[in-house]
Amino acid sequence: MATSPESTSPGTARERLLEAAESLIYAGGIHATGVDAIVRQSGTARKSFYTHFESKDALVAAALERRDERWMNWFIEGTLHRGANPRTRLLAMFAVLHEWFASEDFHGCAFLNASGEIAAADDPIRVVAREHKERLLAFVRAQCDEYMAAFGADGQSAATLARQWLILIDGAIGVALVSGEPDAALDACAAAEQLLEAESARPRAPSRRAHT
Amino acid sequence: MATSPESTSPGTARERLLEAAESLIYAGGIHATGVDAIVRQSGTARKSFYTHFESKDALVAAALERRDERWMNWFIEGTLHRGANPRTRLLAMFAVLHEWFASEDFHGCAFLNASGEIAAADDPIRVVAREHKERLLAFVRAQCDEYMAAFGADGQSAATLARQWLILIDGAIGVALVSGEPDAALDACAAAEQLLEAESARPRAPSRRAHT
Repeated sequence: MATSPESTSPGTARERLLEAAESLIYAGGIHATGVDAIVRQSGTARKSFYTHFESKDALVAAALERRDERWMNWFIEGTLHRGANPRTRLLAMFAVLHEWFASEDFHGCAFLNASGEIAAADDPIRVVAREHKERLLAFVRAQCDEYMAAFGADGQSAATLARQWLILIDGAIGVALVSGEPDAALDACAAAEQLLEAESARPRAPSRRAHT
Repeated sequence: MATSPESTSPGTARERLLEAAESLIYAGGIHATGVDAIVRQSGTARKSFYTHFESKDALVAAALERRDERWMNWFIEGTLHRGANPRTRLLAMFAVLHEWFASEDFHGCAFLNASGEIAAADDPIRVVAREHKERLLAFVRAQCDEYMAAFGADGQSAATLARQWLILIDGAIGVALVSGEPDAALDACAAAEQLLEAESARPRAPSRRAHT
């Protein structure tokens, strides 16, 4: 499995523009990346940009949507590959992150970075970022549901655990970016393990099924 | 106590330039903020900029250093004000964050945002960000040391807890920014409480003092 979600496959002119936009924006931010640099790196003619995109903003949003899909596939594949049951899958997420943090091209979460750079919360780029995290949360939630079901916990508890998981994931990404320490993933994993222990040890009301 | 770390006090031309740079950068990012806009918002003459700063980068770094000091003072004051002992202080940090997340001008962590926007890890702006998080970690660590000492835990455990705390703080900030949900602070607080419970319940080797 790839140790980093960066892509290296070229394709059509549109694909190459998206690929160049994604990698330049990920490394240096949205505002610092000009259309000229994207066109240059893509190896396409400038005309291609005008053919395929209405504006730089439209290209950026499309590049982030493409990254969302690729990143999620990479993350889900790495998680499922490592974990045979809900518990190991939940903890495997931090092993996937650890590899990513240690990779040379790691520069934090493109979607957190984009949200930090764009002022208006309803900007299409911010919406793509929000939807990315919702997709990540949904994947985490599915694992939490399965983990918690074994203890007869309600959906509310699984939802809370999933949101806490997302906080640990985003926190580890932020700390790894600022400090340059990939081991932030290990600290987050140890904290995550404590949360799982606490859930498994928590006394629960008998389920309704037990009374019928 | 202020519910947000934003400043409103004007001062000398240099202060006003720093103030304008800080608020414009916080809202819209570093690259999107031009020197012209900073000078305009500061109400100073353009000459003041050249008198006080070598470059835009120098102004940005100085503005972030100023924010570091103000943010830390605001965070420490809010935490100490709410918490009478190490446990309540550690958890109070999330109440302080909750108020901040709900404030109108909340736009994530200026230092995480800056790190996401600047490619080179040795850029002076990235260094200011790293030092800010080190200061935050040191404050958290002092509370963790005091909390853990009551259980006879070693410094290693307190250091780990402090790093996990920073992950929860940064994660809550990231989630609140992207999702627009201030309650990320409450989820982080509930997870943090679990970590404290686990530490207080953990069996420890008898301390050396007990043997003498």
